[in-house]
This record gives sequence, structure tokens and C-alpha cells, in this order.
Amino acid sequence: MLRTKPPEALSMKRYEKFAAAIAEKIRSGQLPPGAKIPSVRVASQAYAVSPSTVFQGYYLLEDRGLIQARPRSGYYVRESASRQVDERPPLQQVSDGTEVGVSDLVYSVLSSLRDPDTVPFGSAFPSPDLYPLSRLARSMAKAVRGLDGGRLSDMTTGHPELRRQIALRYMNSGVRLPLDELVITNGAMEALNLCLQCVTQPGDLVAIEAPAFYACLQVLERLKLKAVEIPMHPRDGVNLAALDDALRRLPIKACWFMSSLQNPLGASMNNDAKAALYTLLEQHQVALIEDDVYAELYYGTQPPHPVKSLDRSGLVMHCGSFSKSLAPGYRVGWVAGGRFARQIDRLKLMTTISPSLPAQAAIADYLQHGGYDRHLHKLRDTLETQQNAMLAAAARYFPKDTQVNRPVGGYFLWFELPQRVDSLKLFELALAQGISITPGPIFSATQQHRHCIRLNCGYRWDKRSEDAMALLGRIIATF
Amino acid sequence: MLRTKPPEALSMKRYEKFAAAIAEKIRSGQLPPGAKIPSVRVASQAYAVSPSTVFQGYYLLEDRGLIQARPRSGYYVRESASRQVDERPPLQQVSDGTEVGVSDLVYSVLSSLRDPDTVPFGSAFPSPDLYPLSRLARSMAKAVRGLDGGRLSDMTTGHPELRRQIALRYMNSGVRLPLDELVITNGAMEALNLCLQCVTQPGDLVAIEAPAFYACLQVLERLKLKAVEIPMHPRDGVNLAALDDALRRLPIKACWFMSSLQNPLGASMNNDAKAALYTLLEQHQVALIEDDVYAELYYGTQPPHPVKSLDRSGLVMHCGSFSKSLAPGYRVGWVAGGRFARQIDRLKLMTTISPSLPAQAAIADYLQHGGYDRHLHKLRDTLETQQNAMLAAAARYFPKDTQVNRPVGGYFLWFELPQRVDSLKLFELALAQGISITPGPIFSATQQHRHCIRLNCGYRWDKRSEDAMALLGRIIATF
Repeated sequence: MLRTKPPEALSMKRYEKFAAAIAEKIRSGQLPPGAKIPSVRVASQAYAVSPSTVFQGYYLLEDRGLIQARPRSGYYVRESASRQVDERPPLQQVSDGTEVGVSDLVYSVLSSLRDPDTVPFGSAFPSPDLYPLSRLARSMAKAVRGLDGGRLSDMTTGHPELRRQIALRYMNSGVRLPLDELVITNGAMEALNLCLQCVTQPGDLVAIEAPAFYACLQVLERLKLKAVEIPMHPRDGVNLAALDDALRRLPIKACWFMSSLQNPLGASMNNDAKAALYTLLEQHQVALIEDDVYAELYYGTQPPHPVKSLDRSGLVMHCGSFSKSLAPGYRVGWVAGGRFARQIDRLKLMTTISPSLPAQAAIADYLQHGGYDRHLHKLRDTLETQQNAMLAAAARYFPKDTQVNRPVGGYFLWFELPQRVDSLKLFELALAQGISITPGPIFSATQQHRHCIRLNCGYRWDKRSEDAMALLGRIIATF
Repeated sequence: MLRTKPPEALSMKRYEKFAAAIAEKIRSGQLPPGAKIPSVRVASQAYAVSPSTVFQGYYLLEDRGLIQARPRSGYYVRESASRQVDERPPLQQVSDGTEVGVSDLVYSVLSSLRDPDTVPFGSAFPSPDLYPLSRLARSMAKAVRGLDGGRLSDMTTGHPELRRQIALRYMNSGVRLPLDELVITNGAMEALNLCLQCVTQPGDLVAIEAPAFYACLQVLERLKLKAVEIPMHPRDGVNLAALDDALRRLPIKACWFMSSLQNPLGASMNNDAKAALYTLLEQHQVALIEDDVYAELYYGTQPPHPVKSLDRSGLVMHCGSFSKSLAPGYRVGWVAGGRFARQIDRLKLMTTISPSLPAQAAIADYLQHGGYDRHLHKLRDTLETQQNAMLAAAARYFPKDTQVNRPVGGYFLWFELPQRVDSLKLFELALAQGISITPGPIFSATQQHRHCIRLNCGYRWDKRSEDAMALLGRIIATF
């Protein structure tokens, strides 16, 4: 499938390109934790760049927490990045259809976040400071002045320029999409709800990830659907053998998966796994609801391919959103609905009619004129820096037998604490000290992952964050 | 129940107050069509105003189409307002639970409206020209500059100032509402959907009006609910005897009614009927979903009381919206959810999380500083003028045995054409001539009202409108 160069690669400075190449080697494990980074002389020759470019690149990587200098010895890959997660997937059974009931737990976590003095490690959103809110405000002011009567009277199909801009971004990432496959929605949450309602009836089975995004569990609960939990590898995503088995045995109506930067694990399926997943879907003619809201938050320069890019037969409903990449609170998302697009559009007309038109128009203007790719480039770097800072803090303060993954994007870290730790109890104890966390069981229809927590590294790292990690470490030590 | 004076009454000019008093007499039938209006001398004495105030008042009423001058004879109530609808309610049975399937028809009507050259008599919205879009744009520009991170991070409960402003308007109209009963939604459509999901399960019975707003039928269809159609009096609304009977016989889970300015009939229940309705609800402990989106579009100065104003036991979920009164396309509505408020709020979190925050903030700013009551006052006058123009045109061009109501607000007219007219066929024929209309059967789960049409008088009346009515009249004559 055609894949063009991501636009930001074209505008990167030389030292940034060099740093990106080294960062890629660290992420892939070619340069493992503790390894010595090539000297300036060697790197300068190997990459055909000037020594000062190498210096600038190394400063950048140091700044992002990927490498660290040792006096009179040069640069090394940071040790804090060292404790990779166990290669074995956690021992789990495929569930054969579980009625879901996690909502009370979810609401108590959500309401823990309402106090602005609470350290927001339990939040589902990155810091709003990371977004170009004032530039967006200018786009909004301009867009809303141009919203005349004509525009407002046919709002049901979505803002035409926004549709065009989204389709363009698909095209730039190698997915050819007929415009009428796109349905603009009130954030990805509405898109996911509509997709699920299109392909299921109450009582049906839906394959989901274990652990899964808790809102997925809530939506299943609301629609009276049953969850077939497919075990996840914490780095590589859905266990395809388990999925294959489940699809053979059970009348599964749809899969709801995050193929890249899965919430909560941060796992991403590689391209081969995605291709194998698509083959399974086609074979069983089961629809995929691909929740891809973190798509733009990959680190480095190589965007992940969605399963949608392989979709020959319209089986994939690919759901995206601007809430985590550009405009939190604007509530604009979409779905590229494959063969279900028209039905999704009709369902939307019956439920909310249309997302807010000013928000759509503002985002359309921003995408045209605001410098979205520049913003994303900066956002990715910031998130990677913050991820490294949190990993470093965890290495300092959490028990030695903690396991953690290093997702290649996003702003979540999934910690497998020692089995003796009860994350629900930890949630209570930490909240009493002003720190919110997300306990593992809210990501499971069967209340698993009791010793796991998800932490949000989407906020600027400062002394308060560092102190909070130290305090968390001390509380964990009491178990 | 306490009811304060509507704020606009305080700022009305003397001649406007005088005109409003006369208009009220015309609407109530005290001054029937064709009746002579008091002379300037008589009126001036009776109302204790100057003759010039009476003159200005009469000019205003003439302008709005309520009265007309006859040379050397004075003013008379317009004859065009004369053909009141028959007092007998249309002959209808209560349906005992009908599965609903109107969607295809609805979509073909909706898509007929996409061509801007089509005369929009079939539209569900008034002309966007009637709204203070540029003043709203200023509120938006200001509000969005003030949307900082803090605001964005706790968006789930709705914009605090918007909530306060909505609660204030309830209070000013005599409804005391605890703030936490309010849930801000993506327009009233989402509110109605959430309310219905709160109190029903698939297969349940819901009492609705016959005819009913077609989206109500679609939502029932989508949620697999069954409609119990309660016959309507075209002027007075829900037939309470029929409702009482249905509530006794059938396990009805909820009522979905528009107690004021019902769509499509324009019917409004009077206060006694509303009180009787509430008594029935309490007696059977059945929840009312009160769809009150036209609440602000009453003509004159006396706002209708919602059934919600009588709600002692939290049985009424009162749904409102700014889409028809202020900000089309912004998609901001709400529900005052009574005892179901918390459950509605949770459902909303699982479906769309929150309405667009910029739209909420802009409307909050407008409500505080924009002059909402001034705008509404003007909007009501404009709609009344347009209603009169359409009634006058119908009197000229439609068959003599057409029946039409004169709703005391809103922008819909419901025409009962002679029985020989097939409104579905009329829809096709008119559309071929560039005129959209809404055929009666789309307002019925049982495809009744085949000889009826709903026309929208929410657009500025001009030669095109007049010509379209004449052409419609000629097409109707061919049946």
C-alpha cells in the first residue's frame, strides 16, 4: 500500500533527523539500555553530518531523557529505560462472554480527578497546556464569523472542509478513503458507540482486549453486550492465536481493538500482526471497530499503519478524534465507517444530529492554516520526554520487581507491581495523599489486573510529579 | 407556584404593550376573525393610553398580519385567520403498542432539503437569518480566548456559567431547580435519547403523541421500543381521557410529550390540562419526558408553563435546547432530569462524554451579555408575522375545505387538506417543482394523517414564498 513520507520529516532540521535516527535505534533495542552511544567522530562519519550536528542531536536526546552523559566517558542509553517487561504474556484465559459491570469503580476514579490540587496520574487526558489553545481560539474566531445561514442549514453531513482535511490526512498516511465513508461525530466516544450499535444487538458477543479501555467496558455494559476478553501481550497487543480460537468457537459479532498505542498497556501490533488480524476478520466476516485515538501520538517519525489501511472489503470502522492530538473539549471525532458508513450516519442523525458546527469549522481552519504537523511534532517530543522522566522516577522509587513497558507513543505507562500490591487499596491510599492513579481492575470485565496501575505521563514533569512518584513508591512499599 | 414577570415585558414600549394586549384578545378568540377592533377613541380611553399610542399599536398589529384596515371603516381582525380547525379531535384509536418504522421516509424528506434552491417549507428549522449569529460569534471569540487548561480538564459536568444561566432562566419562569438536576447535552436530541434509555428497556411501551415529532418515532425504532399513540386535539394537545385509559390498561414505562407548541400540530395544553396530566403521571408513577424545545417561541408576552413547573416528585425530565431559540448548529441542549438526573449524566459520559466546550462557553457569555431577551422578543414577533403571512396565503390558494390551526407560537402550520389529497404523492409532485413539504405520515407510527402536511413558516416571507404557496395550491387542486 502506498505510504508517503510524513510531512514533518520534510521540515525537520538536520540535527533533529540525526537524533530521530538514534532514538529509533534505542526504541527498537538495537541500542539497549546502558549501551554506549557512538562517539561524535564515529557518528559524524557514519551519518555524514558535521560534529556540531551530532552534538546538537545528542543534547536533544539527553533533554528528552533517552541518553545520559557520563563524565569523561561519553553518552549512554539511560538505565532507567532498562527494565523491559517480561516477554511472556500475562497468564490469562479467554473469557467466553462476560456481562460487564465496572461503572461504579470508573465513576469513583473519574470523580477523584475533579480536585485541581490532585496529582493527575489517574487522568485519561494529557495536560491541556500541551495544546495550541490560543491559536485554535484564533481559528475559532475566524471560522465562526464565516458561519452563515447556508452553512448552518445543512449541518447533518458535517463541515465539508473538515471532511476534506481529514480525508487528506488519511491519504497522506496511505489510506485512500472515499469521502462518503467519513462520519463526523461528537468525539471518538460517540463514533465507537454508533459503530457498536450498527453491528450488534443486545446479548451479542464482542471481542475486546484484556485489559481494555474502561469506557469500552462501560459501553458494552450499557448496550447489554457480552465481552469476550482476548489476552494482550503488553508490548505486541492482541494475542492472535487466542482470537483465532475465540472466533472459531464463539458467535462473535465484532471486535473492538486499539491496534496501536493501546489504552492502558501502550501496546502496538506490528504490521505483520495487523495483516494477520485482518485476514482473520475477513475469514470470519467479523467487523473491526478500530479505536485509533492515539494514532498521532507516536514517538519518532514513523506513524503506525492502522488495520484500516488493509481494508479491502469495508469491514473496518476506523475511529479517530482531535481530543488527544489537538483540541481537548472541542468534542470532534470521526469514523471512517467502511461498508457501515451510511448506517452509522443515520444512527447519528437519531442520537445527536451533528457535532457542534463552530468546533468543526474551527478545527477545519486550523488544519488548513494553523500548523498542525508542527504542533504534533512538538507534542510527540514533549510526551516522549515526559515518559522518560516518569520511567526514570519509577526506577528510583518503585520496587525492583515492578515491570513496565516502554510504549512507542502516547502518555500512559502500565506498571505491573509485585503481586502483593492491591491497586484498589493503593488507589484509596494515594488519593488520601492527593495523588490519583488508575487501578488495574477498572480495565477488566472480570476484575483482573489487581496488582497493576496505569499512570498518566501527559503532564509537564516537575518537582510535584517527582515527589508524587516518591510518595507513591513509599505507599507501595507498605504492601 | 411563583411566576415572575418575563423580563422583556419590563422593557417593552407603551404601544407594544398595548398591541400585545389586543393581540392576546385575538389569539384567545375574544376578538374573532372579522370582528371590528375598538376605534382609536374607545381604545385610548379603555387602555388609558394616548391616541398616538393606539395608532402605533394598530400599525404594528397590521404589520404582523393580525388586523387589516378597511377604507373609511377602521380596523378588523383579519379574515385569513378565520378558518379555525374543527373542534372535534380527529377520529383515532389508541394504538396498543406499535413497532415503529418510518426512517426511510424521514431520510427522503431530509435529503430533499439539501438543495438550497428548494423552497424550505419542509424544513424542521427556522431560517438561520433570524438568529444573532454575528453577536454570538463575538461571544464565541471572547469565550474561547478564556478557555484555559483548568476549564478544559473538568468538562464532564458542563460549563458552570452556562449551567447557572439556564437555572436562572428556570427560576425566572417560576421553576425552582437544584443545579445538580441539570445535564448539558448535545442538543435536545441527545437529552431525549438519554432520558428514554434511563427509563426503558428494549420491548417496553412508551406513550407518544399522534401525530408525533418524527425523530421521536425514529428514536423509539432505534431503541426497539413500542409506541402507544395517544390521539391529539389539534389545538389542545394530548387527549387525557385516552391517556388515562392507556395508562390503566397497558404497562407504559414513560410518556414522551410536547406539552407546549407541539410538533407538528402546534397544539399547547392549557394549565389545567397540564395539572391533570401531572396527576395521572403521579398516580401511575410513570415518568414524563417533556420535550420543550419550542418553549421560548411563544407569541405575545405570556410564556407557557411546562409540566416540569408542577413536578413535586422528580418524575419529569424537561428537555430544552438553544437550537431553535438562539444558536442553530451549536448543538447545545439540556435536560432538567428530576430523580433521573444522575443516571442521565452517567449515560452521557458513556456516549458522548460532553458537548463541545467552546459552544457552551459562547452561549454562556451570550446569555450574560448578549441581550437574549431582546433577541427573543424580536424573534417571536417575526415568527408571528410570518405565520400570519402563510395563513393569509393558504386562505388565498388552498381548497376551501382545508383546515388549519393557529398555534400560539413556533413556526409550524399543520394543514388538514381534503381527504382526497395524498400527501406522499403531493410531496413528490411539489419537490419536482422545487418546493419541499413535510407529509403527514412521517409523523405517525401507523402511517396516518395521509391527507395532512406540515409547513414551515420560519423563513422570511417574500415573493418566492407567496409564489410557492400559489403553486402548491394548484398542485393540491389536481387531486
